[in-house]
Amino acid sequence: MSSRAHFGFLAILATTVVVAPACADILVKEIGSFHIGGHEVVISGQPTKEVSFTAGMAPLQIDPNGAFEIEQMYVQYVKLAAPKFKYPLLLWHGGGLTGVTWETKPDGKPGWQMFFLNRGYDVYVSDAVERGRASWARYPEFFTSEPMFRPKKEAWELFRFGPPGSYDSSAANRRSFPDTQFPTEALDQFAKQGVPRWVTNDAPTQTAYDQLVARVCPCVIVVHSQGGNFGFNAALRAPDKIKALVALEPSGAPDPDKVDVGKLQAVPHLFVYGDHLQDSPPWPTLVKAPQRYRIALAGAGVKTEWIDLPEWGMKGNSHMMMMDRNSDQIADLVAKWLEQSAD
Amino acid sequence: MSSRAHFGFLAILATTVVVAPACADILVKEIGSFHIGGHEVVISGQPTKEVSFTAGMAPLQIDPNGAFEIEQMYVQYVKLAAPKFKYPLLLWHGGGLTGVTWETKPDGKPGWQMFFLNRGYDVYVSDAVERGRASWARYPEFFTSEPMFRPKKEAWELFRFGPPGSYDSSAANRRSFPDTQFPTEALDQFAKQGVPRWVTNDAPTQTAYDQLVARVCPCVIVVHSQGGNFGFNAALRAPDKIKALVALEPSGAPDPDKVDVGKLQAVPHLFVYGDHLQDSPPWPTLVKAPQRYRIALAGAGVKTEWIDLPEWGMKGNSHMMMMDRNSDQIADLVAKWLEQSAD
Repeated sequence: MSSRAHFGFLAILATTVVVAPACADILVKEIGSFHIGGHEVVISGQPTKEVSFTAGMAPLQIDPNGAFEIEQMYVQYVKLAAPKFKYPLLLWHGGGLTGVTWETKPDGKPGWQMFFLNRGYDVYVSDAVERGRASWARYPEFFTSEPMFRPKKEAWELFRFGPPGSYDSSAANRRSFPDTQFPTEALDQFAKQGVPRWVTNDAPTQTAYDQLVARVCPCVIVVHSQGGNFGFNAALRAPDKIKALVALEPSGAPDPDKVDVGKLQAVPHLFVYGDHLQDSPPWPTLVKAPQRYRIALAGAGVKTEWIDLPEWGMKGNSHMMMMDRNSDQIADLVAKWLEQSAD
Repeated sequence: MSSRAHFGFLAILATTVVVAPACADILVKEIGSFHIGGHEVVISGQPTKEVSFTAGMAPLQIDPNGAFEIEQMYVQYVKLAAPKFKYPLLLWHGGGLTGVTWETKPDGKPGWQMFFLNRGYDVYVSDAVERGRASWARYPEFFTSEPMFRPKKEAWELFRFGPPGSYDSSAANRRSFPDTQFPTEALDQFAKQGVPRWVTNDAPTQTAYDQLVARVCPCVIVVHSQGGNFGFNAALRAPDKIKALVALEPSGAPDPDKVDVGKLQAVPHLFVYGDHLQDSPPWPTLVKAPQRYRIALAGAGVKTEWIDLPEWGMKGNSHMMMMDRNSDQIADLVAKWLEQSAD
């Protein structure tokens, strides 16, 4: 199936895309947060330790045994006084990252959270199980593998700021893609946003996302990268709760032979990909499962769109398109698609 | 020195304390965040690993070597369209916790972030080095000790939800202080807010806080528990930048014989303590350093107040007073003191 199929929506957009206006003030009803999911675990049989917690404070005898909560996720919300849309927007981050993905850009400019608040959505930004304010649990006792830390070189190449081999330990010697939209001068600021990840927590993460959907939806959801699979599966588990799903460069997708995509009739799916996929292993491989999934969705009569940004005149976008210099333009595309697709 | 000295302010307040009105809508200019502090470290000589990142995705060869950012902190801000106060308010959390301390209460009610936004302050909420969205670094390579995880029993007793020995693994059998203001039915939700902590990161944490002060102050700061020492030291390092300091149950304080409190002439200090200190080891010990520090401040002519909440008719407050049922009343006390003390 051609990626240009069903593109009436985009044919119109392609002539009307403009950068969103500067942020206006927003009237906010409440900013708050909660943790959802997780459960109690118990540790026993470990010796007490003597620990000084604060400089100048006497040491305390600390008993490490006891009960703990693990595998919860963190969700922050901003509710508008008068949202323009019936459904809130949920923003789900990718691997090795947190909700900060949506909150700011490495160059200091406002992120998609602020964009969609300005657009009139109540916005929920989450930190998945193990990440950021969701906290993490002892390993290997509870998390069964070692955490992984992403080096700057991996981020530079995997997120397509520059071609393979173009990272250098000296910022002056790094060769980004000449047309990159990522603010590569802010690589260190981006690296500070990274958090350790485990590869063995998909099940509790999916469970927590499903609980989030049950609590705050009906909703529309925007997922990124590793968040793609969690979003696709959340929609399969609660197709009545998710009114539209936007997947920004999902790094995977369910096998359509193993799930019933027919139940997604009422869940429009938008896929958005940036530039230089073919220049950047493993992207030519990573894109295959989402492509196959999209074809299966379309074949089952689900409304889908696949936006290849370079095809539509937007060059140089990285995997972190919500942080790219033209990120407001991409957010505007997504917002227009949502406004047309979700009832 | 009597804790009732210089209490003209409180003598008035004691007859006028009212619960703050329900939240009104706020006109927000911008919600955003940044990371501050931290630096690059390099790992070398480790073997590559084959890792599957996402279900259905082909395994990748991952090189764990390279450059990383560590010891940064995370700062989220909400800027009002028309703040009533000249200086923003910074909220610094305590040990084993994150900025979530200020964002919500375990019973789901709005936290102090929302209270002070309603009051008219721009508010900055941070996650200290190693906590939440600040991320954490490999140990023992970079963080030189093991992380610590706080059991529910430790939280229950150390934070004075109930007397020593009153925690039970069954919620039904826990005996809280009869007059406790903490929503003990929400202990699990509170436990989900906890994050691992290290006891060897005071120096980089202080550095990051000092950098935060240099970036966003002049300001007023509210610190809690372990945050107390960081706040006291930040004021000593930048007395011109901090217009008032509120310490909620600081768990330590500088030795006044080793610092020059005389430079704090223009930095009013408020200390606030809850109930059942004498019933709850180690609090009778922990309170001594802040008491001694406050006496030294007052002796040097620094404006100080020491609010012992039970003395002023507020019974049953825990160490987590910003989460207690009457937390708005305490926030109101703090707000009134700030309005009177900071120019």
